[in-house]
Amino acid sequence: MRARSRPARGALQGWAVTTPDDPLGWAPDPAFAAGSAALARLPLCDVRLQRDARFPWLILIPRVAGARELEDLAAADRARLMDEIVRAGHAARAIGEALGRPVAKLNVGALGNITPQLHIHVVARRPDDAAWPGPVWGVGSVLDYTPDQAKAARTAALRALNRRPRQI
Amino acid sequence: MRARSRPARGALQGWAVTTPDDPLGWAPDPAFAAGSAALARLPLCDVRLQRDARFPWLILIPRVAGARELEDLAAADRARLMDEIVRAGHAARAIGEALGRPVAKLNVGALGNITPQLHIHVVARRPDDAAWPGPVWGVGSVLDYTPDQAKAARTAALRALNRRPRQI
Repeated sequence: MRARSRPARGALQGWAVTTPDDPLGWAPDPAFAAGSAALARLPLCDVRLQRDARFPWLILIPRVAGARELEDLAAADRARLMDEIVRAGHAARAIGEALGRPVAKLNVGALGNITPQLHIHVVARRPDDAAWPGPVWGVGSVLDYTPDQAKAARTAALRALNRRPRQI
Repeated sequence: MRARSRPARGALQGWAVTTPDDPLGWAPDPAFAAGSAALARLPLCDVRLQRDARFPWLILIPRVAGARELEDLAAADRARLMDEIVRAGHAARAIGEALGRPVAKLNVGALGNITPQLHIHVVARRPDDAAWPGPVWGVGSVLDYTPDQAKAARTAALRALNRRPRQI
């Protein structure tokens, strides 16, 4: 079982390291780099922040080689994933608070029709957002974060994911 | 802890009863009746079959009063939910097979922007379906099942949910 250790001293800034190594054969699909940025590493999942200021939006990618569906995870990893989805929900809420847009509803989705590597979207929603009440996927055009917004979003998300935040 | 008993003799036909009572204060939102039909009862969730022949589509509704988000469930119920999501995925695949349209990808979503009572969609997708590669929610018009299709879908889904199918 993986230890849920606190981030080691010297860990990459802004990167909540809890496991030092990737499983053999696992790497994130390069497609994720186009729309999101690496944010943190949880016991099971890499966490990425979607580069879209319209919605506080995290992506969890379990570090399990070949996984495409939830059923491809072992039971223990499915339980870890559920825990990390809840943690990502706290982080998405924290981003909303940090940007002055408190969150009304979380949307969680595992789709993968375009990028089949198993990944879970955790998106914070408000009735005044750009897609409400529909889903966010494929809707409208991405709105870039300003540098200040991006920094505030990352700081808030990492604080929520880590509880004890690291300086970033 | 709830027992995962096999369906009792005399249980309602087509209703995989594993718990006899609803928790105090819980009832499914009446909005679900408009688009879906009761299918089965799993240890945590009521399972409904969406009345839309375009997609094999199940809805899981945890019988937990007041729950709107995954974080509102106790950890044990979150683990049950993950198990039931996987079972519902098997059932959605089984519907696709029964209707001659084997499934390429499962989509799992907990949105609730319109009906906030916690519920999870489990939808089977194919590259030739009516919404691919986008999400299914809010897309196009519902296509009714024929009576024969609906019977085949229910039978296949119940067989997959129950493993030991009941006569329906």
